[in-house]
Amino acid sequence: MPTPLDLAQTLIACPSVTPATGSVFDALEGMLTPLGFTVTRTVDGEAPDDADGGGPVENLLAIRAGPEGSRHFAFAGHLDVVPPGEGWHTDAFAPEIRGDLLYGRGAVDMKGSIASMVAAVAAIPADAGTISFLITGDEEGPARHGTVALMQHMAEAGVAPDLILVGEPTSVNRLGDMMKIGRRGSVNIFLGVDGTQGHVAYPHLADNPAPKLVAMLAELDALVLDEGTDWFQHSNLEITEMAIGNPAHNVIPAKAEARISIRFNDLHSGASLSKKVTEIAERHGGWARPIISGEPFLTEPGAFSNMLADAIRAETGIEPELSTSGGTSDARFLKNIAPVIEFGLCNATMHKRDEAVAVADLDTLARIYERVARAALAG
Amino acid sequence: MPTPLDLAQTLIACPSVTPATGSVFDALEGMLTPLGFTVTRTVDGEAPDDADGGGPVENLLAIRAGPEGSRHFAFAGHLDVVPPGEGWHTDAFAPEIRGDLLYGRGAVDMKGSIASMVAAVAAIPADAGTISFLITGDEEGPARHGTVALMQHMAEAGVAPDLILVGEPTSVNRLGDMMKIGRRGSVNIFLGVDGTQGHVAYPHLADNPAPKLVAMLAELDALVLDEGTDWFQHSNLEITEMAIGNPAHNVIPAKAEARISIRFNDLHSGASLSKKVTEIAERHGGWARPIISGEPFLTEPGAFSNMLADAIRAETGIEPELSTSGGTSDARFLKNIAPVIEFGLCNATMHKRDEAVAVADLDTLARIYERVARAALAG
Repeated sequence: MPTPLDLAQTLIACPSVTPATGSVFDALEGMLTPLGFTVTRTVDGEAPDDADGGGPVENLLAIRAGPEGSRHFAFAGHLDVVPPGEGWHTDAFAPEIRGDLLYGRGAVDMKGSIASMVAAVAAIPADAGTISFLITGDEEGPARHGTVALMQHMAEAGVAPDLILVGEPTSVNRLGDMMKIGRRGSVNIFLGVDGTQGHVAYPHLADNPAPKLVAMLAELDALVLDEGTDWFQHSNLEITEMAIGNPAHNVIPAKAEARISIRFNDLHSGASLSKKVTEIAERHGGWARPIISGEPFLTEPGAFSNMLADAIRAETGIEPELSTSGGTSDARFLKNIAPVIEFGLCNATMHKRDEAVAVADLDTLARIYERVARAALAG
Repeated sequence: MPTPLDLAQTLIACPSVTPATGSVFDALEGMLTPLGFTVTRTVDGEAPDDADGGGPVENLLAIRAGPEGSRHFAFAGHLDVVPPGEGWHTDAFAPEIRGDLLYGRGAVDMKGSIASMVAAVAAIPADAGTISFLITGDEEGPARHGTVALMQHMAEAGVAPDLILVGEPTSVNRLGDMMKIGRRGSVNIFLGVDGTQGHVAYPHLADNPAPKLVAMLAELDALVLDEGTDWFQHSNLEITEMAIGNPAHNVIPAKAEARISIRFNDLHSGASLSKKVTEIAERHGGWARPIISGEPFLTEPGAFSNMLADAIRAETGIEPELSTSGGTSDARFLKNIAPVIEFGLCNATMHKRDEAVAVADLDTLARIYERVARAALAG
């Protein structure tokens, strides 16, 4: 049986910048089929509807059914990676072991985790229960045709896991020190005020939109959305853009625009915040156009997080922190079909040059994944 | 003797978009020399110091000295014109009379006025007093090497008028309905706040400059600079630009910038407003970089404005309004050497396509200029 290291190297060697297609899915299919999985691959979001969705995107659903009535545990993740960028000391898509580390784009985010998942299930007998892999080729991009499409295919096929573990790199300093039981939601809102252009010497003939936008932004910036919850930090609003675009010193501009980004906890929804911000914008004579990137999710600490914490503790001796910090992940979609927790490798080098994983961590993670899957299937 | 219409056509036929040089000055010199004027032409602001000053600029100083000890009245103006732009029904630099109007770029701003000045002095005997022409080739542009340079040459030559009439097109609906006894000052101030870039999901690691800029702009916008004076409307501040320039929805920007434009009366100076705004900017953690375009001027109503009003009333029957409205003019410089008032043609078509002057107005203006010059020289 190949080691997690072998598997990770194979996956890293298949370049798969978002949206991932082709060889990297061939490689994963080639690992799962011998383990008894039925693999279904789809291409979603093809033209013409992929104009702003980043399609076409390749997705993979693999299932190894346990005995009738057995529980169903799913591993979820993505094979696409962010672009390597400049300045690598190796070829980002030529995996290389130096010292204790394996270098390559995706080493921790998250081809390494997927390698550990494959190694984990290889050690679990088929009669332990149903195991599935929910793997997308677009998690780092627009994510419109990735996990969302995969979930649609699962619904159509009647595939319904009991629990889902997403292999995002959640560990911070040492493998096992953090799992994510939730994530904040995210909404970006374009704001603007329309006015009437004119000469600064004749302001009575113009209607400057800038003071209205300034007052709007001041009110938005002063909002206290909440004080946080037991599991979430407080929701936060940032002004990320202000734009008039007026090169003429003596001209009162015709419009003034801005953009804010809100990361919010489960006291809010994208819709509730959009409504609140739109009301404020309109009160200042302006408009608001929200783009909701993700709703928050929380898997309350309990049986699932305990199983995972037990597995982590058994393999590492570390007591994992249950966190809801950081950005969004595909768990924002998966939470709609089953309790979901994220746990994976150390994230120090993710999205950076010289992304690397400790070779030993790949083995440890495989054993943690095996433990939690066995526990989940045992119920 | 050529009519004001002849003279205006001659000047319009010499293209002279800012900075004006060459033939248009030859034409004016050719009009003034026969009238007994000593013409001095200079080229100011040559490279390398013209990088941002719009040089080289041609200027003209013409003097016809009266008897020893006589008073000195100066006509001031500019031979440069703004670009014609698109959509003219004639060639902008081929003067054409249609109906009662003379069409051409500069017809009212202000080759027509200069033509009327020349016709006026042609009717005044040399022993009436000293008359001069202070004519620049850059009033519509940066104006760094125009009237400012001309004043330097005058100071060096000991040329000091008692009163100055600037021929800007100040009339609004009918020739004679408005003179400008003052103009507001103008300062543009670049504002900014420097922060620390970061990810919107980790605001504690970043320092968003936008809220500070918003608070700064809100305070500036709320300033009441004054309530106006007997002769000036209140000073006014406009936000003319806001700029972050951040395309990334999930990034807290590293800097946020803006620009304001203040038109101010003689209760302030460019320096006093720069100091006030800089203090506010720095209190909000930002910076301010002022560019003072012009200080305000006011020639208090009195003998000079009465002479001009008498002349206008005698020729038109109209009682002129004494105004300080509108943008800046070269009077902002000339006020430092003598009382200055602006009076000229109707400004409805200035800077527009199909700029045109009523032919009859050129004659009437010549007679008004003659009357006011005679009165000024009589003392």
